[in-house]
Amino acid sequence: MKSFIGDDFLLSSKTAETLYREYAEKAPVLDYHCHVSPKEIAENKAYDNISQVWLSGDHYKWRLMRANGVGEKYITGDAADYEKFRAFAEVLPRAAGNPVYHWAHLELKRYFGCGLALSPKTAGEIWELCNEKLQNGFTAREIIKASNIAGICTTDDPADTLEWHVKMKNEPEWNVKVRPAFRPDNALNAEKPNFREYVGTLGKAAGIPIDTLDDVYGALKTRMDFFHENGCRISDHGLDRMFWRENEETAGKAFLKAMNGSALSSEETECYKTALLLFCGKEYHKRGWAMQLHFNVMRDVNTAMFRSLGANTGFDCVFARDGGVGLIRFLDALAVENRLPKTVLYSLDPSDNMPLATAAGCFQGDGVKSKVQLGAAWWFNDTKAGMAEQLAVFANAGVLGNFIGMTTDSRSFLSYTRHEYFRRILCDTLGNWAENGEYPADIEALGELTRDVCYNNAARYFFGEHGNSA
Amino acid sequence: MKSFIGDDFLLSSKTAETLYREYAEKAPVLDYHCHVSPKEIAENKAYDNISQVWLSGDHYKWRLMRANGVGEKYITGDAADYEKFRAFAEVLPRAAGNPVYHWAHLELKRYFGCGLALSPKTAGEIWELCNEKLQNGFTAREIIKASNIAGICTTDDPADTLEWHVKMKNEPEWNVKVRPAFRPDNALNAEKPNFREYVGTLGKAAGIPIDTLDDVYGALKTRMDFFHENGCRISDHGLDRMFWRENEETAGKAFLKAMNGSALSSEETECYKTALLLFCGKEYHKRGWAMQLHFNVMRDVNTAMFRSLGANTGFDCVFARDGGVGLIRFLDALAVENRLPKTVLYSLDPSDNMPLATAAGCFQGDGVKSKVQLGAAWWFNDTKAGMAEQLAVFANAGVLGNFIGMTTDSRSFLSYTRHEYFRRILCDTLGNWAENGEYPADIEALGELTRDVCYNNAARYFFGEHGNSA
Amino acid sequence: MKSFIGDDFLLSSKTAETLYREYAEKAPVLDYHCHVSPKEIAENKAYDNISQVWLSGDHYKWRLMRANGVGEKYITGDAADYEKFRAFAEVLPRAAGNPVYHWAHLELKRYFGCGLALSPKTAGEIWELCNEKLQNGFTAREIIKASNIAGICTTDDPADTLEWHVKMKNEPEWNVKVRPAFRPDNALNAEKPNFREYVGTLGKAAGIPIDTLDDVYGALKTRMDFFHENGCRISDHGLDRMFWRENEETAGKAFLKAMNGSALSSEETECYKTALLLFCGKEYHKRGWAMQLHFNVMRDVNTAMFRSLGANTGFDCVFARDGGVGLIRFLDALAVENRLPKTVLYSLDPSDNMPLATAAGCFQGDGVKSKVQLGAAWWFNDTKAGMAEQLAVFANAGVLGNFIGMTTDSRSFLSYTRHEYFRRILCDTLGNWAENGEYPADIEALGELTRDVCYNNAARYFFGEHGNSA
Repeated sequence: MKSFIGDDFLLSSKTAETLYREYAEKAPVLDYHCHVSPKEIAENKAYDNISQVWLSGDHYKWRLMRANGVGEKYITGDAADYEKFRAFAEVLPRAAGNPVYHWAHLELKRYFGCGLALSPKTAGEIWELCNEKLQNGFTAREIIKASNIAGICTTDDPADTLEWHVKMKNEPEWNVKVRPAFRPDNALNAEKPNFREYVGTLGKAAGIPIDTLDDVYGALKTRMDFFHENGCRISDHGLDRMFWRENEETAGKAFLKAMNGSALSSEETECYKTALLLFCGKEYHKRGWAMQLHFNVMRDVNTAMFRSLGANTGFDCVFARDGGVGLIRFLDALAVENRLPKTVLYSLDPSDNMPLATAAGCFQGDGVKSKVQLGAAWWFNDTKAGMAEQLAVFANAGVLGNFIGMTTDSRSFLSYTRHEYFRRILCDTLGNWAENGEYPADIEALGELTRDVCYNNAARYFFGEHGNSA
Repeated sequence: MKSFIGDDFLLSSKTAETLYREYAEKAPVLDYHCHVSPKEIAENKAYDNISQVWLSGDHYKWRLMRANGVGEKYITGDAADYEKFRAFAEVLPRAAGNPVYHWAHLELKRYFGCGLALSPKTAGEIWELCNEKLQNGFTAREIIKASNIAGICTTDDPADTLEWHVKMKNEPEWNVKVRPAFRPDNALNAEKPNFREYVGTLGKAAGIPIDTLDDVYGALKTRMDFFHENGCRISDHGLDRMFWRENEETAGKAFLKAMNGSALSSEETECYKTALLLFCGKEYHKRGWAMQLHFNVMRDVNTAMFRSLGANTGFDCVFARDGGVGLIRFLDALAVENRLPKTVLYSLDPSDNMPLATAAGCFQGDGVKSKVQLGAAWWFNDTKAGMAEQLAVFANAGVLGNFIGMTTDSRSFLSYTRHEYFRRILCDTLGNWAENGEYPADIEALGELTRDVCYNNAARYFFGEHGNSA
Repeated sequence: MKSFIGDDFLLSSKTAETLYREYAEKAPVLDYHCHVSPKEIAENKAYDNISQVWLSGDHYKWRLMRANGVGEKYITGDAADYEKFRAFAEVLPRAAGNPVYHWAHLELKRYFGCGLALSPKTAGEIWELCNEKLQNGFTAREIIKASNIAGICTTDDPADTLEWHVKMKNEPEWNVKVRPAFRPDNALNAEKPNFREYVGTLGKAAGIPIDTLDDVYGALKTRMDFFHENGCRISDHGLDRMFWRENEETAGKAFLKAMNGSALSSEETECYKTALLLFCGKEYHKRGWAMQLHFNVMRDVNTAMFRSLGANTGFDCVFARDGGVGLIRFLDALAVENRLPKTVLYSLDPSDNMPLATAAGCFQGDGVKSKVQLGAAWWFNDTKAGMAEQLAVFANAGVLGNFIGMTTDSRSFLSYTRHEYFRRILCDTLGNWAENGEYPADIEALGELTRDVCYNNAARYFFGEHGNSA
C-alpha cells in the first residue's frame, strides 16, 4: 500500500515515476490563465493565518462546506478565521475523492511541510503550524518563488490601467513575468444593467468618446495595443454559452439602443455579441494573440445567494448545452478570412470534450502546433478523472505532444501544486502507455513530450510563436 | 483468478475487503425508493416457482430476452412458466457484462444458495432448486427478512388509501418499516386522457370537490397530511423531461380547460405542471419531506408494443436532452423563497451526472448535509460502471460522505442484493483510494464513511432531520 | 514491461491471451461497412510507395499533420511522396495515445514485418522497407488476402452500375465476396445544389423518367432490386442529424419545387427527407436488408478548406446534438406497421451511446438477435477507449453476444488490422470479466462469444437471416 500523498502519489509505474522525477518536476510553471491579483503580487501581500490565504475567496471550498450543511456565517460571514478553518476541517474527511481533498493536502505538504490529514482532530495543530510559517515571511511572492513559477498571466479588463504589471516589469530583482490577459466580457455584455456605465469607463481609458459600434471597436483596438505593449499575448472570453447571429447592421443599432437605455431583444444581444466577438477574433489574430473561449456555464443560478454574495461565490453549474453550431460558425467565419487566431476551447460540460477536440481539428493552420486546441480540464472537471479524461480525449482526437498543459485558473497563490497534480497524472498516463507496450519505452522521447506539455508548449504557443500578420 | 461471484466479488484490494466485511455487510438496508406492492408484503405473498418472483414484472429481463429475438409469448405471453425460464436461461450467458447478469447470479447465490451459472444446461437444475425453496415458505416477508431490511418506501398515488401500510404498522411482530412515498404524477399530467377521471378520484379521497386549481392544491395538502400521519417523508416525481413556465393565471385557466375536456396547448400544459410542481415543492419543504425528481426519460416509445402491453413494459429510453435550465429555474424559484425541500435529482442520461451534481451544489442549505444531491445511478445506469461513475461524479462535485446511497427502484423482492452489489463497488472505490495513497488508510474513518453511505445517511436524510418549517 | 506492440498487445490477462490466440485471431473478417473502391480491387491496384497506399486519401492522418502545423503542400498538395511521408513521421511520435499511433504501427508490423517506431530517425529505413515489398507484388488483392477477409461491403450510390462487383463475382479464382451496399444520400439531399442533376442520373440508371415523388420511389425500388440481385443486403444513410416531419403531401410538393430549381424551406426539406427515409426503411424491411444510420456529424465545417479540397478531407466534427426524438419517431413509425428493418445506429457523439443502446432495446423483434443495435465505435470514437466504452455500453444495455462487431469504415486497404485491434480489446474485456469473477472462467463459452462478435454475428445478421416479408 502506498503512503498518503507519498512521493509516488498518483504514479502507478516505474516509468511514470522516472518521468515525473526526471522531467516533470524540473520543468518551470507558466500559469497562463488565473485570477490572482496583480496588486497583491506587486505589494507582496502577507497573511496572518491559513484561513486568509486558503479559505477566503475559494468558492470550491465554499461549495464543499455548503454541501455539508455549514452556514454562511462560517463560509463568507463574520465568524472568526479559526472557526471557519474548523468548519472546513470537519468537511474535508467526508469529501473523499473530491479534488479539493487532494489539493488541500498537497498544499499542506508542499508549502507547509505538513503531512497530516486535516480533520477536526488535527485542525488545531495544522492551524498553528501553517500560521507560524505565514507570519514569518511566507508572503505572496515567497509562495510564488517556492512554486518554480516562470510566468503568470492575470485576467484583466480592457479598461484596466495595468499599473501593477508595469510596476513589476520595472523591478530588477523580480524575475517572474506577470503579464496581463485581455478579457473584454464587460464590453460584450450589452444586456447587463451596468453596460452603459462600462462603455463610459472604456472610452475614458482609451481616450476615445464612444458613440457608435465603430467607436467601441476603436477603443478596444487602442486598449489591445496598450495591453500588447505591456506584454499581453492572451485574451479570454467568458461566454455562458456560444451564440452565432451575424448581422453587423443590427449589431450597430443594438448598441445605440442599449446606450439609450432600452432593453435589447435576445436577437439584438446576440447580433451585438457576435459582431464584437468577430471583431476581437480578427484583432487577436492580427497581433498573434491567443483567444481563450470559456463557455457552457450557467452562472449565479441561485438568485437568493447571488443577491447576498454577488458573482463568483460558488453558485455556478454545468448546464447550458447548445451553442456547438454557433462556435463552429464563429471559428469558420474567422478562418474563411484567414483571420482565426490561436484558440483554446474550454467547455464546462465534460460531454463537450470530444465535440470540441474534433472541432479544433478542423481549424488548424498557420504553421502553429495545435493552433486551435481543447483547453485543460476546467473548473468542475479539474479533477483526477477529469484531467485523465481530457488527456485521453486530446490524445485521441489530436496531437497530445502539442497540448499547452495545465493552468490553475485559480484565485489563490497556494494553487500551484495543481500543476504537480496534473503532471503526476500526465506522467502516469504516459508511463502506462509505455508499460503496456502502447508507446515505446523510449524515456527520452517520453521525457521530451512530458517537458513540452508541462511547460515548453505553453511558452511557445503563447509567447514564442506568431500567427499570420494581416 | 477469482472464483465466479466469490466472497471477494468486485473487491480488488485488501482494504476493500475489510471495508466490505466489517462495515458494509453489517449495515441494514433502507430501500427508500422502489415499486414493490405493499399489499403483497402485507399478505405475505407466496410463489410457486422462480419465474413468478423473478421474470413476471421485470422489464429489465424482458428487454434482454427481446434483444435475443425471443417472442412475446415467452416474455409477457401465455407460455408456461418453465418455458419462460428456459428462454431467459438461453439469453443470460450471452448477456455478459450486463448488470442483470450479475444481479441474477447474486440473487441465485444469496437467496437460493445456488452458485451455478444459469444457462440452458443448468436451467433444469436451478428451476428445481429454487422452486423447492419457494414452495417451502420462502415468501415475500421471508425474502425481506433474509435481506437485512430496516425499511422500505413504496411509491403511492395521493388518492391511495394506504390501507396496507396502516395494517402493517399495527402488526406487533413485523418490525420492518413499510412507509408510503407520495407520487402525484397523475395530478400533474393534465395532458393525459384519464386526467378528469383522476381529479374526481383525488377529490373523493380528499373529501373535497375539485373545481379549480386551488381545489387541487387543497386536496393534495389534505392527502399530504394523511400520508405524513402514516409515516410518509418522501415524495417522487416522474417527469419525462423538466419544464419551466411560471404563470399561475394560465395554469388556473388550463386546469379549467382540461376539466372541460378540451385539449391543452403544450404551453398550457407546462404552465399547469410548473404551478403544481412549485406548489408541491413548497408543501414538501413545509413538512420536511424530501423531493425526488426522476426525468429525461422517453417512455413508451414503441407505440405498437404500448398498445399491446401498456406502460412499464420495457419500451422506455434515454433521450430527452433538455430541461436543464428549467430544472434550475425550478430549484431557484423555491430557494429564493427559502422553501426548497431536500431534493434528490435523477436523470436517465448519464451525461447529466456532472450537470446535476454541480447544480445540486448551488442549492445547499438549511443545515442539512447535502440537502440537494445527485441520486443513485438510475435504471439503465444502475450498472457496475454506472454506479462507479455516479460515485466518482458525486465525490468530485460534492461530499461523498453525505450520499444517501443505493435504492433498488425495483418491482421485485429479490432485488435487495443490488444493495450488496452497490456496497461492494463503494468499498472497492474507497479501498482503492486508500491503497493508492489518495485517502489515509484510516480504516475507522473509511468504515464510518461506508456505514454512512450504506445506511445512516438515508435514515438521517429522509427520516431523522427536518428542513425549515414555514 | 511489455514490448512495443508485442504479441500480448492490449491483452492484460492470461484469459485474454487465450481468447485472442484460440478464437479471435482465427476468425475470418467480414468488413461490412467501408469506403474502399471496388474498381481498385477488381483491377488489383499496385503501389509504388507507402505514401500512396497509406497517406493519400486518409483524412485521419491528415488531421494529425494539420494539428502539427504541417502545410497542405505536404498533406494534400504537390510535395513529393517521400516528403509527405517524412512530414507524417515527424508528427507520429508526438501523437501518443491517438488511435492512428497504434494503427500505423500495427500496419507496419503486420503487413511489412516492421517493428520499428516511425519517427524522423527511422523514416528513411521504413520507407525503403515498405516500398520494396509494395513494388514486389503487394497489391490491393494481396493485402486483402493477407488479412483473412471473407467479405467486403463497399458503399455505393443507387445509380451505380456495380460493374466491378459483377466482374469480380464472375472471377472463379477470387473468393473474397465483394458486395455493394446501398447508400441513397444523393436522393435524400434535396437541399444540395446538384440535386436536380442527380435525379436525372438516377432516372436514367433506373430506366424511369422521374417527375414526381412517386417516380423517385419507383426508381429507388428498381435500383434496390438490381442491388439485391448483385448481392446487396445492407443499406447506409449519412444524415448529419436526425429529423422527423411526417407529411407526405408537403414532401411531394417539396420535390416538385426542388425540381423547379426553387430553394426549399427547412421544413420542406425535412418533410421530403422524412418521406424518403420512411419509404426506404419499409423497402429495406421487405427485402430483409439491414439499415445503417450514421448521424450527428457536422460535415465540411471549414468553408475555406472545403472550397479548396472538397468533402471528406478531414473537416468534420461531432456537434449536432439533437434529433434523438426524431430518430425514435422514425423507428416507431416503421415498427408500428411492422416494417422496421434490421437497423444499426451510429452517432458520432459518444454521449449518444447510452441513448442509442437503450433506444435499440425498444425496437427488437422478428426473431432476429439484436435486430436493432448500437453500431461499432465510429470514426473519432474508433479508439481504444471508444471501443472499450462502446462494448461496455452495448453490454450494459443489451446482449453483447449479439453484437455484429467491428467494421473499418475505411478508405484504405491497410486498415484491416483495426479488426485485430478491436478483437484484442474485446478479448481483454471478456478476459477481465472472467479473471474478476464477473463471468465464469468457461473458456468455451467465452470463446464462442468471441467468435460470434468477431465474425459469426455479422455474417448471420447481414446475410444469413431474413426479416419479415411484407
